[in-house]
Amino acid sequence: MDTFAPPLPTFTDVLDAAARIAPHAHVTPVLRSRALDALAGCELHFKCEPLQRSGAFKFRGACNAVWSLPVAAATRGVVTHSSGNHGAALALAARTRGIACHVVVPEGAVAAKLAAIEAYGATLHHCAPGIAAREQAAARVERETGANFVHPYADPRVIAGQGTAALELLQVAGALDALLVPVGGGGLASGCALTLAAQAPACTLVLAEPRGAADTAASLAAGKRVTEFVPDTVCDGLRGTLGAPGFELLQRHGASVTVVDDADTLAAMRLLWTRLKLLVEPSSAIALAAVLQEPARYAGRRVGVVLSGGNVDLDALPRGFVAA
Amino acid sequence: MDTFAPPLPTFTDVLDAAARIAPHAHVTPVLRSRALDALAGCELHFKCEPLQRSGAFKFRGACNAVWSLPVAAATRGVVTHSSGNHGAALALAARTRGIACHVVVPEGAVAAKLAAIEAYGATLHHCAPGIAAREQAAARVERETGANFVHPYADPRVIAGQGTAALELLQVAGALDALLVPVGGGGLASGCALTLAAQAPACTLVLAEPRGAADTAASLAAGKRVTEFVPDTVCDGLRGTLGAPGFELLQRHGASVTVVDDADTLAAMRLLWTRLKLLVEPSSAIALAAVLQEPARYAGRRVGVVLSGGNVDLDALPRGFVAA
Repeated sequence: MDTFAPPLPTFTDVLDAAARIAPHAHVTPVLRSRALDALAGCELHFKCEPLQRSGAFKFRGACNAVWSLPVAAATRGVVTHSSGNHGAALALAARTRGIACHVVVPEGAVAAKLAAIEAYGATLHHCAPGIAAREQAAARVERETGANFVHPYADPRVIAGQGTAALELLQVAGALDALLVPVGGGGLASGCALTLAAQAPACTLVLAEPRGAADTAASLAAGKRVTEFVPDTVCDGLRGTLGAPGFELLQRHGASVTVVDDADTLAAMRLLWTRLKLLVEPSSAIALAAVLQEPARYAGRRVGVVLSGGNVDLDALPRGFVAA
Repeated sequence: MDTFAPPLPTFTDVLDAAARIAPHAHVTPVLRSRALDALAGCELHFKCEPLQRSGAFKFRGACNAVWSLPVAAATRGVVTHSSGNHGAALALAARTRGIACHVVVPEGAVAAKLAAIEAYGATLHHCAPGIAAREQAAARVERETGANFVHPYADPRVIAGQGTAALELLQVAGALDALLVPVGGGGLASGCALTLAAQAPACTLVLAEPRGAADTAASLAAGKRVTEFVPDTVCDGLRGTLGAPGFELLQRHGASVTVVDDADTLAAMRLLWTRLKLLVEPSSAIALAAVLQEPARYAGRRVGVVLSGGNVDLDALPRGFVAA
């Protein structure tokens, strides 16, 4: 059970984050594809976070957290628990400030992602799977080293940082009728909700969530967080549980959820590889799959799609994704 | 034997091409990667033609050729022979002008590329492999339909169009010490030579060529075109023979050639997929492989790399490229 409950960030925090991460993060391109527009029957604007440093949007939030630390605290480094992209992002963000980074990783995490975390210079701490084991291990490292804990999706500095993705997208794409964002722990989704509420209140926020980890859909439907479930999805970045701040911000915003089958996510992933030429991971492709699932809803509309990351292990592609 | 010998294009033709294709072609992004810079020991500026329309730089030349046609001639359509990217590019270019396109394709061409040609609305004409059979078939279509022949790499309008890739790269990257370009028929290479000669005379032009189709290296060494060889390389876009105009322009420019083994090309392709997140084809990756092959030559330099295309058949990836 996730018990981390700091104050909620605001759009001002998103703007502050944008200024704070500017010297370190890429302003990622927004790509278009006439072929995909024709297929989807709408105008798609892809925010390409695979081209962000560390290969995922996670660098935004991690970088904001690292550079928000007062100097004295920063010298003690940072610690987090993460099975993948957040760990790599925090490791790289820590390196931009020259401070230590500790990452608690559960057994069974994707090998390519662990290798990336180590390559960025972080110290790995292995633990058993499950959120309880992760939190205990991270708390132990925090006690022993004095490192500052940066939660992967519930930390307000992280949420504010992720909101800069939507900010940049709106700057390039202009007015959008809808924004599609994948949802796992809810950091990206709720950060984007802050941006939309302030900058594009007419734009509908739609969250794309795998059927095998649809706790956000269940939580918003029930009006309270549903945290008891066993994830079963190819979207390794979306297996986590919606955090408490994410839940509050998304509920307040009135976000809706589209639940997507893995088979449709993988079909969308092939489309993005072959038509957009971008190596996206399943947790990104799900957002395009959600658009293709409801053609009538988006027909003729201007639709933003956040492609969240591209950290794929080529030696562990989903079964049947390529013939080899 | 390739007997097509029109006048040579000049840099003025490149500038004209840039203006002519501007309404139709993408200005593709120039991507950077700190990880690849560290690996290569130099500063790499990747011109990303997989993000060009039709998925390859070929659209530049094809578009310039199509829109160079006088109105009366244009109504009769265009014809070419191509096993892949040029065919798709010409089909799409013809579509931008609303004219017919005929593409002669040899048996054994990559299925994904044929599908793309057809999807862009061109008529396919199958023929036996070999340049003679291709040229005969194209000449027959030309006679029967009145369509205008657009040679894939010897047409001066095509060469001039390809030169716009280097033009855009220099505009973004600024001064470069070296530019790496893959060489097959020589359209891209010689077009870029025109641009460098006019805009960046201090920049060294290095051509990357597969060991299994190294006719350009042999031709420049011999001082005359070597056209008798049987290509054997994973770089399906580079199996053609250096054209006469390409030979003249590259010889005049003093371009050098780096010959690359397929294994090194495939290793570079994995790097580009996993680090740049761009789905490049082998014929593109060879240019990075050429840089990595000579670290001392490029150490600390500003190096441009033209990633020429990203039309990969995911169901026919090179053997051993991914574990599956």
